[in-house]
Amino acid sequence: MGANWGHSLRLSIFGESHGKALGINIDGLASDIDIDFESIERDMGRRAPGKNSFSTQRKESDSFEILSGICDGKTTGAPLCAIIRNEDKKSKDYSKLKEVMRPSHSDYPAYIKYRGYNDVRGGGHFSGRITAPLVFAGSLAKSILAKKGIYVGAMIESIKNIEVEMPTEDRLSKELFDELAKKEMAILDEKKIVKIKEEIERARMNQDSVGGTIECFAIGVPAGLGEPFFDSLESSIAHLAFSVPAVKGIEFGKGFDIAKYYGSEVNDEYYYKNSIVKTKSNNNGGILGGISNGMPINFKVVIKPTPSISKLQHTINIKDKKDCELEIEGRHDPCIVPRAVVVIESIMAIALLDKIYEAGGRYE
Amino acid sequence: MGANWGHSLRLSIFGESHGKALGINIDGLASDIDIDFESIERDMGRRAPGKNSFSTQRKESDSFEILSGICDGKTTGAPLCAIIRNEDKKSKDYSKLKEVMRPSHSDYPAYIKYRGYNDVRGGGHFSGRITAPLVFAGSLAKSILAKKGIYVGAMIESIKNIEVEMPTEDRLSKELFDELAKKEMAILDEKKIVKIKEEIERARMNQDSVGGTIECFAIGVPAGLGEPFFDSLESSIAHLAFSVPAVKGIEFGKGFDIAKYYGSEVNDEYYYKNSIVKTKSNNNGGILGGISNGMPINFKVVIKPTPSISKLQHTINIKDKKDCELEIEGRHDPCIVPRAVVVIESIMAIALLDKIYEAGGRYE
Amino acid sequence: MGANWGHSLRLSIFGESHGKALGINIDGLASDIDIDFESIERDMGRRAPGKNSFSTQRKESDSFEILSGICDGKTTGAPLCAIIRNEDKKSKDYSKLKEVMRPSHSDYPAYIKYRGYNDVRGGGHFSGRITAPLVFAGSLAKSILAKKGIYVGAMIESIKNIEVEMPTEDRLSKELFDELAKKEMAILDEKKIVKIKEEIERARMNQDSVGGTIECFAIGVPAGLGEPFFDSLESSIAHLAFSVPAVKGIEFGKGFDIAKYYGSEVNDEYYYKNSIVKTKSNNNGGILGGISNGMPINFKVVIKPTPSISKLQHTINIKDKKDCELEIEGRHDPCIVPRAVVVIESIMAIALLDKIYEAGGRYE
Amino acid sequence: MGANWGHSLRLSIFGESHGKALGINIDGLASDIDIDFESIERDMGRRAPGKNSFSTQRKESDSFEILSGICDGKTTGAPLCAIIRNEDKKSKDYSKLKEVMRPSHSDYPAYIKYRGYNDVRGGGHFSGRITAPLVFAGSLAKSILAKKGIYVGAMIESIKNIEVEMPTEDRLSKELFDELAKKEMAILDEKKIVKIKEEIERARMNQDSVGGTIECFAIGVPAGLGEPFFDSLESSIAHLAFSVPAVKGIEFGKGFDIAKYYGSEVNDEYYYKNSIVKTKSNNNGGILGGISNGMPINFKVVIKPTPSISKLQHTINIKDKKDCELEIEGRHDPCIVPRAVVVIESIMAIALLDKIYEAGGRYE
Repeated sequence: MGANWGHSLRLSIFGESHGKALGINIDGLASDIDIDFESIERDMGRRAPGKNSFSTQRKESDSFEILSGICDGKTTGAPLCAIIRNEDKKSKDYSKLKEVMRPSHSDYPAYIKYRGYNDVRGGGHFSGRITAPLVFAGSLAKSILAKKGIYVGAMIESIKNIEVEMPTEDRLSKELFDELAKKEMAILDEKKIVKIKEEIERARMNQDSVGGTIECFAIGVPAGLGEPFFDSLESSIAHLAFSVPAVKGIEFGKGFDIAKYYGSEVNDEYYYKNSIVKTKSNNNGGILGGISNGMPINFKVVIKPTPSISKLQHTINIKDKKDCELEIEGRHDPCIVPRAVVVIESIMAIALLDKIYEAGGRYE
Repeated sequence: MGANWGHSLRLSIFGESHGKALGINIDGLASDIDIDFESIERDMGRRAPGKNSFSTQRKESDSFEILSGICDGKTTGAPLCAIIRNEDKKSKDYSKLKEVMRPSHSDYPAYIKYRGYNDVRGGGHFSGRITAPLVFAGSLAKSILAKKGIYVGAMIESIKNIEVEMPTEDRLSKELFDELAKKEMAILDEKKIVKIKEEIERARMNQDSVGGTIECFAIGVPAGLGEPFFDSLESSIAHLAFSVPAVKGIEFGKGFDIAKYYGSEVNDEYYYKNSIVKTKSNNNGGILGGISNGMPINFKVVIKPTPSISKLQHTINIKDKKDCELEIEGRHDPCIVPRAVVVIESIMAIALLDKIYEAGGRYE
Repeated sequence: MGANWGHSLRLSIFGESHGKALGINIDGLASDIDIDFESIERDMGRRAPGKNSFSTQRKESDSFEILSGICDGKTTGAPLCAIIRNEDKKSKDYSKLKEVMRPSHSDYPAYIKYRGYNDVRGGGHFSGRITAPLVFAGSLAKSILAKKGIYVGAMIESIKNIEVEMPTEDRLSKELFDELAKKEMAILDEKKIVKIKEEIERARMNQDSVGGTIECFAIGVPAGLGEPFFDSLESSIAHLAFSVPAVKGIEFGKGFDIAKYYGSEVNDEYYYKNSIVKTKSNNNGGILGGISNGMPINFKVVIKPTPSISKLQHTINIKDKKDCELEIEGRHDPCIVPRAVVVIESIMAIALLDKIYEAGGRYE
Repeated sequence: MGANWGHSLRLSIFGESHGKALGINIDGLASDIDIDFESIERDMGRRAPGKNSFSTQRKESDSFEILSGICDGKTTGAPLCAIIRNEDKKSKDYSKLKEVMRPSHSDYPAYIKYRGYNDVRGGGHFSGRITAPLVFAGSLAKSILAKKGIYVGAMIESIKNIEVEMPTEDRLSKELFDELAKKEMAILDEKKIVKIKEEIERARMNQDSVGGTIECFAIGVPAGLGEPFFDSLESSIAHLAFSVPAVKGIEFGKGFDIAKYYGSEVNDEYYYKNSIVKTKSNNNGGILGGISNGMPINFKVVIKPTPSISKLQHTINIKDKKDCELEIEGRHDPCIVPRAVVVIESIMAIALLDKIYEAGGRYE
């Protein structure tokens, strides 16, 4: 497996949906960082399920315990491992899950790869719950970045066919990100929230699910971060993004639309604004040649509709080697996009902090 | 910098546009692999410039020399390093390039990162020419995959607003990929080629440029490749894709569009076809939970319009610390998409081979 | 810090002497491995302190908890994280430790590196206790190797000036290793044990300490393991060996003595024994060109005398920036060599398993 | 294979004795480093053979060519690849080498690992010639360290039974290292040189070989370098040391002898000397807890007698699967220790520079 990520900030992740605990070992942190327990708890809460109609009713406190790497509330420079215990386990029969492969889930490829020994309870290591330790790391990274004047925020850009207008770059601010982080849904337009909730409720009533897109921004990022050829800032962010279950696409700046324009229309021209280098547009999402250029970083990801739906589906029974039907029971999110917002913020923050450390900024 | 990539197949890349040579050191190759010089040369030729009106007139033979790792035409198991000498160098004055930052190029962030010491001649290490050694590695990887019954092919999906219909999955075959590889433009529909050439020519005449999208496929891929959590097959491919200059987005399977459907509409249902597991649709692009599921892998990338345009642009002079105007001289591709097709194939092949080796398939 | 190790078997370690827990995340394990809880507990017990006069009286149960990566007592292929809770914590004043640097300890360089924020309680992350999770990983590795017919055993070769005769290679066997593992001191000669205990007791009474050497063997190792140039089998073992606190030297086969002979005297000549390739001597410790040659692997490490001694020592107070005197209080091992034996076995086992997996032997 | 090494300074090596070229790709170098061609050439010359009676008569100019990463004689921050062409190739019949396994060489384990496809000409990738690119990297590293006031020097400590007295630490200086580097043999005592030459000549006349030990020092190293747990400074140096062919042991400071003393005798007590922290002794070789403590770093390695001897040896023919006799023909070093001195310096320099960059000192 690929439990490890990072060059100068190194993560090692573990855990399953129904195992004893999930966790992450974070290596490379500077010493003398105050752990902001409150903001980590807030971010963990943003990801946690069970809080409203559009997420699974499974209750998880998602309270974390830091096992190492801190002393008197500050980092020591030693690896910091945090774990999240699993609590709400239902003892039930999982044998069927070992045989009947849920469509669009990891069940079948994992069965082949691990020869049937993968933990299938709740999706095991492939569960979206594995993002809880990632949010822990991301929240910690965000608080370190904030000390350097770098702020990260993400918001829902669309759910199914309902699109939300994104703020212009001049409106991006720490305050805006804070405001979004407090909301049940990371959307500024309250009317759109109502519409989107209706769409999600419709899917839920139809035993179906919906997906959406999330846009993520970072402001205050200095020019010079990124390690091309292979470790461009885009490569690092994308690498992390595709670790997140359900992400099927990522684009930076204007993304796929950029190909619809002439070069002269989308080139980002430079100018000096009070001796600071700026670009008039930011179609490249703040990254050129794989390196940050001082403008806000932004990217968008697509989250596919939750594959766990209660509707009748056709699939196979791998033990009988026969086609069969499936009705997935249990509690499922009809839409995981609202809970994924803080996960996407996390990967932006983690990628940026790794690049800052790589560039020698651990103690700047 | 980030010259290295890979877990079980390890690449280390080097070179600049106007340096002595570019190259790549490939570690982890099995021994006893016949080097298919002909197919590598063919692929190098597909990327090389100077062959028609829509690419730069700079002539580069792109002939490679293998320095190590082979004996009697076969790999030995030792690291294989190949280099491509630079030939067509014009001695000219590059001092202006050190001062006037070309919009949407790496010039400015590289200037900051390397404190003005980066090689600016022809873009230096940030030149698209750095993809030549990548194509060498990719072509070698493709020939190794072919021995395992895995075939990779890419084609142009769009140039500016002109979209090309993609073949249905049942039409994908080694023969189709071979046919595409022989064409000046990797497009099956000849009429679309005419239209696209017109569009590119229009851009060229207007001292402008256009971009496009490329779709890439792999067939014959066994289920079980990919190393989640962090090293999913999607993460590996995306990591490599964003190393390629000008790529600004990637999506797998149905990509961004998948969010516009209900889960029940896009879940890929399994069935047995002659005892082999298949899915009725392939909206996930052959990857679930970060692991291949036995269906064709496919992804799409967007290539931005070449930022090097001759049109007058506004930018800054970093020495004077003043705004200025810029007209880029020299020979530039009005559209690099046709030449990028084989680069995109290369990253698919490299990522797959790394995962196969990681899974223990070096000598299967 | 460097919390991570390994290519195909990947470790990520964490924990401090007086933190909440120590642990290790192990990635890359094959699925379907039975966890031999008993043998792990036995090995953890061999390392644990508090069991006799020559080790510290601090009692640590060293009981481990596996948090992830197993299901029904077998590995799932997902990362396996195990933790060991710290229990026997004494609340006491550690402020002096932050000022008065203990000679030959990590105190001073860690103070500089982590700017005074390193956890000094019990040595923090630099404590010998960090080897407990390493023994967990090593014991697991040993049980996996045993299934492949590979057995690892270590024994004390000397304590201070008392040398112990090593068994000839034909005497090495699983049974011998098992016998040694059951002993309080990994020495076959009971008379030497008596002498050595006397020497250790003498040191203890003098508020002093002694060191020694440990020799480690692996039998049943197939030829072909090791990844030169940089990742030779010797490099991997040595890398791990010097992670273990107090190790100051390592030698393979005849080691430093080999330079005292002519090439003709120490070259290991090959011959066939019942169609199996053997060498008449094994002066190279089973490794040639960085790759195992099928003969037993063996190496020796030196463990320095425990630097924690109660005797009066001269040192500095880093706060006052003055020279001062120091008498270290508390419970200390007068000799850690007996407890280090299983740690050294662990690094041999971990290095071998990594190389086996690297060579594609995860599911052989 | 393991062609790659390093965290923040990353090496990727390639080449064979009789291939087209050997080389190394160096990634992570700061920009704006002046390449000191003269000192690199001097160091390459110190390793090159053919210069006197105690080394092979094979003439190799070992002239290097830098392919990338420099512009106007300075590093650009892009990966720097240097190659050394092979020149003095004799076309001869190597078929016997594929069958008759030379004792104590890599022949047999490489045959097994690479299934007979490894390049056997001159030892292929296992040749000592692979250290030429390592010396290139090491020499470059030494010149970078020198700018930071850090100097590295190595000297012969023994050849067979002849031991050379090492200078006391207060005598270590840049000037001493320069003086040693100019000598045919890195030994200060001219009388010992005479004796050693006699010993080597005796071995040569007897168609035999001798080995020895080399001690390496670094002065001016700041406290705080090293990344425990797994990437201690000792681990990094040892990892590199065991990459060098023929090294069979390494020890730091007092090394194996340290176990012969009581803790109170070998603990390195601190004191202030003009406000600078020093230790009265340096039995730990400048490294505590895996981190440099500001005292000189020193370690010793043992180089086994060259296994290539002309004397009749017994071995096996792997094709016939029979025992046989062997007389190795050709030109061989009766003693490679003098040429290895600069290789050992190189690994010290490379390891230190990696740790400095890791600690954020790339642009200090």
